[in-house]
Amino acid sequence: MILDVSTFSRAMGEFTATALLMIVGCMGVAMSFPDEAGFLVGSFQYGLTVCIVVHVFGCISGAHANPCVSISCCILGHIAMDMMLAYVACQLAGGLAGYYFLMAMLPAAVIEHNYPAVCVHDPMAELSNFQLLAIEFILTSVLVLGWCALWDVRNDNCPDSAPIRMGLLVTACGIAGNNLTGASMNPVKTLIPLLFDDYRGTFYPQLAGQALAAVLVPCIWCTAFANSDKPIETVHGRPKRT
Amino acid sequence: MILDVSTFSRAMGEFTATALLMIVGCMGVAMSFPDEAGFLVGSFQYGLTVCIVVHVFGCISGAHANPCVSISCCILGHIAMDMMLAYVACQLAGGLAGYYFLMAMLPAAVIEHNYPAVCVHDPMAELSNFQLLAIEFILTSVLVLGWCALWDVRNDNCPDSAPIRMGLLVTACGIAGNNLTGASMNPVKTLIPLLFDDYRGTFYPQLAGQALAAVLVPCIWCTAFANSDKPIETVHGRPKRT
Amino acid sequence: MILDVSTFSRAMGEFTATALLMIVGCMGVAMSFPDEAGFLVGSFQYGLTVCIVVHVFGCISGAHANPCVSISCCILGHIAMDMMLAYVACQLAGGLAGYYFLMAMLPAAVIEHNYPAVCVHDPMAELSNFQLLAIEFILTSVLVLGWCALWDVRNDNCPDSAPIRMGLLVTACGIAGNNLTGASMNPVKTLIPLLFDDYRGTFYPQLAGQALAAVLVPCIWCTAFANSDKPIETVHGRPKRT
Amino acid sequence: MILDVSTFSRAMGEFTATALLMIVGCMGVAMSFPDEAGFLVGSFQYGLTVCIVVHVFGCISGAHANPCVSISCCILGHIAMDMMLAYVACQLAGGLAGYYFLMAMLPAAVIEHNYPAVCVHDPMAELSNFQLLAIEFILTSVLVLGWCALWDVRNDNCPDSAPIRMGLLVTACGIAGNNLTGASMNPVKTLIPLLFDDYRGTFYPQLAGQALAAVLVPCIWCTAFANSDKPIETVHGRPKRT
Repeated sequence: MILDVSTFSRAMGEFTATALLMIVGCMGVAMSFPDEAGFLVGSFQYGLTVCIVVHVFGCISGAHANPCVSISCCILGHIAMDMMLAYVACQLAGGLAGYYFLMAMLPAAVIEHNYPAVCVHDPMAELSNFQLLAIEFILTSVLVLGWCALWDVRNDNCPDSAPIRMGLLVTACGIAGNNLTGASMNPVKTLIPLLFDDYRGTFYPQLAGQALAAVLVPCIWCTAFANSDKPIETVHGRPKRT
Repeated sequence: MILDVSTFSRAMGEFTATALLMIVGCMGVAMSFPDEAGFLVGSFQYGLTVCIVVHVFGCISGAHANPCVSISCCILGHIAMDMMLAYVACQLAGGLAGYYFLMAMLPAAVIEHNYPAVCVHDPMAELSNFQLLAIEFILTSVLVLGWCALWDVRNDNCPDSAPIRMGLLVTACGIAGNNLTGASMNPVKTLIPLLFDDYRGTFYPQLAGQALAAVLVPCIWCTAFANSDKPIETVHGRPKRT
Repeated sequence: MILDVSTFSRAMGEFTATALLMIVGCMGVAMSFPDEAGFLVGSFQYGLTVCIVVHVFGCISGAHANPCVSISCCILGHIAMDMMLAYVACQLAGGLAGYYFLMAMLPAAVIEHNYPAVCVHDPMAELSNFQLLAIEFILTSVLVLGWCALWDVRNDNCPDSAPIRMGLLVTACGIAGNNLTGASMNPVKTLIPLLFDDYRGTFYPQLAGQALAAVLVPCIWCTAFANSDKPIETVHGRPKRT
Repeated sequence: MILDVSTFSRAMGEFTATALLMIVGCMGVAMSFPDEAGFLVGSFQYGLTVCIVVHVFGCISGAHANPCVSISCCILGHIAMDMMLAYVACQLAGGLAGYYFLMAMLPAAVIEHNYPAVCVHDPMAELSNFQLLAIEFILTSVLVLGWCALWDVRNDNCPDSAPIRMGLLVTACGIAGNNLTGASMNPVKTLIPLLFDDYRGTFYPQLAGQALAAVLVPCIWCTAFANSDKPIETVHGRPKRT
């Protein structure tokens, strides 16, 4: 990691990306929470915010905005270890700043309406800790698989709709898991709101699932789905689909 | 079919793609089923999951995740017969594994809430068997037509938004047919849940419609819509639209 | 118009495209009509079906599926007059065939539930005939403007997400006008259902608005928005955005 | 600014774009307003209309349709000062014309149903003026950041899905802020409806937030996120994502 203007841009990018993810994403969730279709609106809003973040910051820092993504990126060799640590630090700081400003902008009535707290979902009571871990592992794995596909050399000719595809992926994972584990798939989104509240619910299994996915999925990608070394067959300029 | 690392990657791709289709797609359906707008959320979620699967596995195995698609792909000559059989076997195994893990992750209360079973729709009682076959044939035909267009040499310069387009296609077919036949358009999605339940409803007509579409549509595509042999006229690099 | 295999493909393409537009689009509308959010689902479904049709038939016939679009295309000089007439004839025949099969596939209970008829919207009673004409003119103009932009040489490097963009355009026009005029923006969709029903409502003003848009918009496009003759300035390969 | 046919096209483009933004966007909002999910439909419709406008007018005038965007564009040096002033004048005139025609087309019953007026949202009573300014500043900043990313040389190979990405961005900002400040993010949309109504609510803080974002965000973009001068590293033709 060379401390030049490009590294500064990237760090600022991750900071702002994560801050906006918290502000825009959680503001939408907070405004629709009391509604019974709230889990749908929340999933949709979280996906749309990921779309915004990848659109704006994709060309600056890669728009991870998620420690799991940065860890996977490092394991796959796309960024160095020290850059990954800088990314994670900026993400935590950005998430903290974003959530703080969000709390300052929302009226007290809205904040009280959101139970247990803004952007915090209590996991479903019937789930065992192992089930919580398994569900959050699966959903975070899908997210990391999406990023692995995006970084893959075989998709290098498809950068255009990447923000939309990642946004839709996050929406689908949210619809699937929002009422089960909260489907945050992001340690920043899981941890930061807890600093502001005296929360007594379960969140360790979700964190463990997220960490497991961040480490295991890139290893599986390299083993099972990696590009074989021979040059890709192309039909008229794109990888042959069969 | 040469048993090398690339064939292994493809087989693993189809296995994982179909497993995720069952897990993420059916988890979302299971969580929203009791709702009266459930058929909308279900269609949307199934479409989004297809989008995820095509995004992640499109560059690995083609992301069929559906025996009908693999059969059509083989009839059009894009994959060999033995590869097609391997694909179908991996899809069935993947669907079975995915549904099994989904059952292990969902709490019993959610599973009981889903009637007749998670990811199973009873066809509308007023429909005759012939109507069931016709509707499922039309919907699966639309799906296979979408894949035929994607594989066509004339769309080779448009791979970027393919996951989104296929996802929207599946969503539209779901909204149209979900309350009629269930609109699964996928033998794996129709059959696997029945292995876990003592289901007594109608599912043969839907399967027949799916099989018919898988065989007829590629033949129609070759006959009526095939690229004529002369080189395509292009205006500034893309096929001339008229 | 040379009667070769390519002309046959195009005619078949328009026939099938319009048939699918009626079957998939109207099936979704018919299944959600009694719901109070029906106009939303209907608009969304009509937009998604346009997305499917442009995706599948865009490379075959251009996927007009709408006489207004073919007339505009002819006025702009992209297709010849005799080809335009063949397109319109195929669209009418396709719409008729599609609606007929749809009626055969839907159970009687669903058909009766849809008032006044499947895929027919009574215009809002408070609207004068002139207002009906104006609203349908504006909405059809937006649709034709969308096609004009798609055909424009300045957008030739953007064919990829065209199906999605046209689908979203139709969705937005539907949400705006569905409860006012029905927002069909398509003479086939306006007329064909009336052949099957003894309908006594207002539909001439809408037709007049559609026809007016089909003729006026391409003229306005050529006059006000046409590409000036000097070569386009490009920045790194795409038209300079300012 | 040279007064030639290209400048005329651009001015006409901005005029028509803003007029359509008001007509199609506000028509959809007006028809769904009494519904309790109105803020969702309104946000979705505003986003879709932005998608239409960018799709149709992107190649003509850049499809700003928003004085904040034109001001930011000028600060970043993409258009000259006199062109910017012409753009803003055309946007105001277009917004006025569009809203006037919309009022003429809607029946009186619909207009009365919309409180306080068609396309006007009362800000949430609990918000202080400073909070209103802060929220509208953040949301408009996200919009301007989206445009900055679109104009950036590093995204020059991604023009295709730009209309969809901008539409989704506006949707997300609307879901977040619609019930708080109205989330117009556009001085034209904030001011024009007030000319037609005797409105006594708060709108100065929102305008101030919009103006602040239009000026500050491009400066931040240049300082923190600008492309460093060295040529971009590319992997297989696209900017290296890390």
